[in-house]
Amino acid sequence: MMNRFDRATPQVHEVNALTGDAEGLELLNRYWDAANYLTVAQIYLQENVLLRVPLAAEHIKPRLLGHWGTSPGLSLIYVHLNRLIRRSGAQVLFVAGPGHGGPAVIANLYLEGTYSEIYPDVSRDLAGLRNLVRQFSTPGGIPSHVGPATPGSIHEGGELGYSLAHATGAAMDNPELIVACVIGDGEAETGPLAGAWKAPAFLNPGRDGAVLPILHLNGYKISGPTVLGRQSDEQVVSLLRAHGWDPVVVAGDDPALVHADLDRELGNAHARIIRIQEQARQNGTDGPSRWPAIILRTPKGWTGPDFVDGVPVEGTFRSHQVPLGGVREKPAHLSQLETWLRSYKPETLFDADGRLVPELAALAPKGNLRMGANHWAHGGTTMDPLPLRPLENYALDVGTPGSTKHETTMPLGQMFRDIYTDTARDPRFRLFSPDETNSNRLGAVFEVTDRCLMTPARDGDDHLSPDGRVMEVLSEHLCQGWLEGYVLTGRHGFFATYEAFAMVGASMTVQHAKWLQHSRDLRWRQPVPSLNILLTSTCWRNDHNGFSHQGPGLIDTVLSLSGLVVRVYLPPDSNTLLAVAEHVLLGMNHLNLVVVDKQAHPQYLNIQDARRHAAAGASIWHWAGNDDVPGGRSASGGAFSDTVSSITTADEPVPATEPDIVMACAGDVPTEETLAAAWLLQRHVPDLRVRVVNVMDAFVIPPRDAHPHGLTDVNFERLFTSDREVVVAWHGYARAFHQLLHGRRHPGRFHVRGYNEQGTTTTPFDMVVLNRMSRYHLVLEALNRVGGGFEGAPELAEHCRAMLAKHAAHIRLYLEDMPEIRDWVWSSPRAGRNSSRGENPS
Amino acid sequence: MMNRFDRATPQVHEVNALTGDAEGLELLNRYWDAANYLTVAQIYLQENVLLRVPLAAEHIKPRLLGHWGTSPGLSLIYVHLNRLIRRSGAQVLFVAGPGHGGPAVIANLYLEGTYSEIYPDVSRDLAGLRNLVRQFSTPGGIPSHVGPATPGSIHEGGELGYSLAHATGAAMDNPELIVACVIGDGEAETGPLAGAWKAPAFLNPGRDGAVLPILHLNGYKISGPTVLGRQSDEQVVSLLRAHGWDPVVVAGDDPALVHADLDRELGNAHARIIRIQEQARQNGTDGPSRWPAIILRTPKGWTGPDFVDGVPVEGTFRSHQVPLGGVREKPAHLSQLETWLRSYKPETLFDADGRLVPELAALAPKGNLRMGANHWAHGGTTMDPLPLRPLENYALDVGTPGSTKHETTMPLGQMFRDIYTDTARDPRFRLFSPDETNSNRLGAVFEVTDRCLMTPARDGDDHLSPDGRVMEVLSEHLCQGWLEGYVLTGRHGFFATYEAFAMVGASMTVQHAKWLQHSRDLRWRQPVPSLNILLTSTCWRNDHNGFSHQGPGLIDTVLSLSGLVVRVYLPPDSNTLLAVAEHVLLGMNHLNLVVVDKQAHPQYLNIQDARRHAAAGASIWHWAGNDDVPGGRSASGGAFSDTVSSITTADEPVPATEPDIVMACAGDVPTEETLAAAWLLQRHVPDLRVRVVNVMDAFVIPPRDAHPHGLTDVNFERLFTSDREVVVAWHGYARAFHQLLHGRRHPGRFHVRGYNEQGTTTTPFDMVVLNRMSRYHLVLEALNRVGGGFEGAPELAEHCRAMLAKHAAHIRLYLEDMPEIRDWVWSSPRAGRNSSRGENPS
Repeated sequence: MMNRFDRATPQVHEVNALTGDAEGLELLNRYWDAANYLTVAQIYLQENVLLRVPLAAEHIKPRLLGHWGTSPGLSLIYVHLNRLIRRSGAQVLFVAGPGHGGPAVIANLYLEGTYSEIYPDVSRDLAGLRNLVRQFSTPGGIPSHVGPATPGSIHEGGELGYSLAHATGAAMDNPELIVACVIGDGEAETGPLAGAWKAPAFLNPGRDGAVLPILHLNGYKISGPTVLGRQSDEQVVSLLRAHGWDPVVVAGDDPALVHADLDRELGNAHARIIRIQEQARQNGTDGPSRWPAIILRTPKGWTGPDFVDGVPVEGTFRSHQVPLGGVREKPAHLSQLETWLRSYKPETLFDADGRLVPELAALAPKGNLRMGANHWAHGGTTMDPLPLRPLENYALDVGTPGSTKHETTMPLGQMFRDIYTDTARDPRFRLFSPDETNSNRLGAVFEVTDRCLMTPARDGDDHLSPDGRVMEVLSEHLCQGWLEGYVLTGRHGFFATYEAFAMVGASMTVQHAKWLQHSRDLRWRQPVPSLNILLTSTCWRNDHNGFSHQGPGLIDTVLSLSGLVVRVYLPPDSNTLLAVAEHVLLGMNHLNLVVVDKQAHPQYLNIQDARRHAAAGASIWHWAGNDDVPGGRSASGGAFSDTVSSITTADEPVPATEPDIVMACAGDVPTEETLAAAWLLQRHVPDLRVRVVNVMDAFVIPPRDAHPHGLTDVNFERLFTSDREVVVAWHGYARAFHQLLHGRRHPGRFHVRGYNEQGTTTTPFDMVVLNRMSRYHLVLEALNRVGGGFEGAPELAEHCRAMLAKHAAHIRLYLEDMPEIRDWVWSSPRAGRNSSRGENPS
Repeated sequence: MMNRFDRATPQVHEVNALTGDAEGLELLNRYWDAANYLTVAQIYLQENVLLRVPLAAEHIKPRLLGHWGTSPGLSLIYVHLNRLIRRSGAQVLFVAGPGHGGPAVIANLYLEGTYSEIYPDVSRDLAGLRNLVRQFSTPGGIPSHVGPATPGSIHEGGELGYSLAHATGAAMDNPELIVACVIGDGEAETGPLAGAWKAPAFLNPGRDGAVLPILHLNGYKISGPTVLGRQSDEQVVSLLRAHGWDPVVVAGDDPALVHADLDRELGNAHARIIRIQEQARQNGTDGPSRWPAIILRTPKGWTGPDFVDGVPVEGTFRSHQVPLGGVREKPAHLSQLETWLRSYKPETLFDADGRLVPELAALAPKGNLRMGANHWAHGGTTMDPLPLRPLENYALDVGTPGSTKHETTMPLGQMFRDIYTDTARDPRFRLFSPDETNSNRLGAVFEVTDRCLMTPARDGDDHLSPDGRVMEVLSEHLCQGWLEGYVLTGRHGFFATYEAFAMVGASMTVQHAKWLQHSRDLRWRQPVPSLNILLTSTCWRNDHNGFSHQGPGLIDTVLSLSGLVVRVYLPPDSNTLLAVAEHVLLGMNHLNLVVVDKQAHPQYLNIQDARRHAAAGASIWHWAGNDDVPGGRSASGGAFSDTVSSITTADEPVPATEPDIVMACAGDVPTEETLAAAWLLQRHVPDLRVRVVNVMDAFVIPPRDAHPHGLTDVNFERLFTSDREVVVAWHGYARAFHQLLHGRRHPGRFHVRGYNEQGTTTTPFDMVVLNRMSRYHLVLEALNRVGGGFEGAPELAEHCRAMLAKHAAHIRLYLEDMPEIRDWVWSSPRAGRNSSRGENPS
């Protein structure tokens, strides 16, 4: 009937000449039938799974969902990889780019036995088969796409584009692993996938595993042809060759011939991978390796209905999802479905109890060599924690808080350097960045490793070699995709990028958070290292680059994601950054956003306080304010020893009397402006009681039912009081802070300054001034909120307005900040009132 | 000294054999010198621009910013394009992918005169030169990147990756235009750029303009080499050939030879473009055209310092930004800078008044042929409005509100169909989508046009031809990038995509909004058609696809952008969608997000009311509630004629008495659930006064100072009352609604149900139930808020809890919704209380 390939007499080449094993491809073809059968069954059936009685309408699901079109191709590849694994003992991780072919992957996992081991209800018998089909794409069941719930997968098959990047990341520092990455011709049209073909420039066969791309061209997307599907073999081959691969084409619509060709070429590819790796491991490399790749061209919806209602289906876009619709209502379609299902001869594939017959079951690899049991795919099971040296090795000696400046990220580079050193024997850490490692002041890593590039370095290159483990490629998608593949297979890393362009990977961030959120509920998935994103070069320091370089929006994106997964840290200084880095590198299953500028900023906390501050998420900086602090800590800007704390967290005794105003800040630049404002207030309005609260974990702000880091109401009010006005200087978009604040009592007393999109100017400017977050604006806001009556307040307000005018004129004339601002550091507001450094109202 | 090319005796080929003009390349080389000189001057100088006195420290800017490395290459291409334009009269639009070479582009605009025409302060004399250099990358000046303020540009040079997509979109339906697109080898590493090479598969020379990619390989990014920069010419050529281009290589570090080669190859490319177009326009096409492309390989920082402090700079990554640092402090660097500047012989380039000498000024094209004056780049000046037929042509006859169901997006497809028809003679509308036009129920467009693909259609293809104007490519980046190029050159369109993957282009959305926000302040930029993004297949209808397919996050991204630019519309039904579509297609300078599901939903408003609803942004649906409505409109579910309004906007008289509870909703699914909840409340708690408010413009919610669409406080409280509890069913993330609400009085009375990331389940489910936004949850919330004391309330609450339990069991057993939910439509809560349709507490 509808299949070109008559399953009764398969035209299979009996002898696999190249490998010489006698197993034969006929059995393999029957195994493929079984996979295809279970795929169709999952899409259509809710009962009578093995067609033990004639098919009837009530056996059909009420809503038909799933993607048939890509499924036979996925299964074809899977069963051939099974055969390769059995012959070679290779460790293969399977990445299903066309993950919407979920039923095919699940069918294969079921056939090999891993699925039932993880989901005992889906047992290898008739009852389990019924559960298998009923769970697919139904309420309370499983999604239609490959995802976290799919054994052996590190890749979600929803948003297309990242399969090859994930595969490449998984292969890094994984010398024994082969990652077979199926890429659909639909996915191949995406930008991120197109950008990922450059992997051979970065994969080192001496230390990394192999990526074997299998570009599956079935010719169509949902309703139109694909670009690559319509190109000649020669053109597609030349594309992959240009990227450094050595592709071969396997094409056809006769299963027998395709089986033989694919078997041979997979064997060749494996042999070549082994040869490349052996040579590199013995003799080193002198350039990128020409890794094998397979271009597989088979019909979309292969083995499915040729025609439906007189319209061609197999080999066309019409087989994309459910090729036969309305099966419950249309007897002809029901009959055609039954014929289709019976064409696979289920009675020859499964025994009376519903088990795969022994001669087929024997074709699956054994134990952990089954792709559904690949231990790298369940990354945490292989994970070794990172060795971290004491933070004291990198901590800055800050002296009096706020009195010295330092490039905040530089010590973090030293920490990364030592991680590289201490994992050299068992490499499991990499830094990923779009060529910004030096720019981000993380260059200390180059004391012990290099940038990675497989092409030989030239004179004038800086720390470049095939052995380097700093991955710089000008693609945020690739940096993040590689890191995702790396951490999902149990290793550790950081993606450091400019805040301005962090939104490039926003959708990947969302998808990774969803993966983690989903994985947490799967006991068989061990926790994996967290995905750590470091955002530098922030909006507050990009005046010269203009508005296109100012975008704190990734915070907004992350705010709405699952509180069980996401974290947003805004360390105010270097030591706090170190404490955050230690925390996120040792943590698991989180997506951490760490936002900090790379330039020189005042440094505030010694390492002990930084650790306490990071652990608490927010604290009162009592030295920066003047409300009563218990325990004699109300020092105002004096010298601090390492044993005297400069912060008071919400868990500690809070001041006996409440302040007149709370000045809160989150982020390095907001902190500096807030401290300068607090200084001005204390200096010139001495009767005003000012409290400074620094928030370095954005999620202490929402109530605990919105995020587990949320402070209890009691502790929240210990920091922010229950009723005083709070002036907030916030790193991100101003209104996003109000989203965080929702659910707290009296939110109207929080007055937030943050980044706002400016519609009224065409030129860059001092960003804190433009966004009314400068020290002078904060002072004016505070004075406005506490009302009149404080001695010195009118004069200070007048001074602030004058300074704003002076500053605006100054920067236009001298093209840089006024010295008062440029050179500002913290000093005691009460000391040296006549020193030149103190700003005094004229 | 540092330059290989001795400018005193340029080794220029005197005769341009191919073109035979006598102008000579020596003059061109001097013009290039002038551009390079002004580039260096912008980076370094604040005074003494033409070095009329010896260079001193005080002439140097305090902060050195800008990117030198890419600049000489950009200028080289610019001056050669000038020459091509003068010879051929070609209309060339210049897209500077390496837009961080801003000073180079601005130098060329200044030299050709367009810059001074637009910015008279930057005049063509000594005073103007001083302003030119002082404005660059300084406070109150201009950003360092090509952007909206740059004449002739449609492309921001910040976030890399979109140059070729923008160029391709600009060329569509622009038959006389040549878009010269410079692509840096840094940008070429990005995914979006890699995905954009497939343009020849979609550009039709019969009707479209040409894209001329100039891939500029200077070899380095910020601190490392580029992947393409380290590949052989042969490999790069094969890459572009594989994508369908016909590239040539121009390479060298001897300006004389490079000038000659580039001149020849640009001439060849132009001739070939003309030939391709003539052939296609006379004889049609039989496949993709082999468009020319140029691979230009010249040293990074060419003509700059060879060595600085003994380290090689020219031709290495060290020339990326500012090759000579600390010039104010280091006399040797100051001296080297002066030598570098004088190597261009400024005294021979500019006359005593600071004007470019006449023989060089003559090299620029004239009038609107100057690339800075290209009228397409200032799109609005060429824009013709779209002809739109009356909406009545497409409006659904809804009868009694809520009584019928229809696929909401289908009539929009009919509207698009007629726009295609009515612009056939002057094509200026295209629909862009990742292959989802049919899936999104917009297939009516295929009655009059096709999907576009240059390869010939095959049997079984559906509406596919080179002449089609529906652009389907499985790349959200490409769809949006093409549309951005299309609208920025004054044409119109829609990008229709699945909500789940809308975040893929989030960063492009942010950048486009910033472009528009910035452009608004530039009088010389006419308004351009809005960028319209239609999101379908929303989170509420993706239970079967799982969490990866549920993401309303683009709303959150847009919320923080400039209120002057962004709009978020959530039409509840088809007629409202039509009204929105009309509005956004005729509007200018906005970024519109329109979110609506594609499946069958109840339809509510006739077209007149839909127009009023869309114009008002929110209204009381008095037929769905039972609080007093003036004017005798308090009909409860009766039939509505076209002349009786079913809505009351905030500008109209509001009910005399206030309701006990307000049920507010935004989005199609939330609206359906809210109406069903309102029905249950009225049916079973007849004494409860219920008001239903539908919000279809998200930005009516914030105060007017946050968004111009914000309702006045008076009107806000006319809809939502001043003090009653409000149960909100919101399409997006629940907490994002609170961000919108910030600034309204008593925000605590709003109780929002919306999408929440679920951390506690591994399986898909009924999404409204899972997110506690089902009709039953909304009823329970409303009853909880109004307190006890209403007759029937306890029984209804019990009923709702029972129904939730029943529903959960039903969908697991029958794999579909209960009939009560599946078949729900609106009916009068007071009529037929014993009918089978009415849910009665048992």
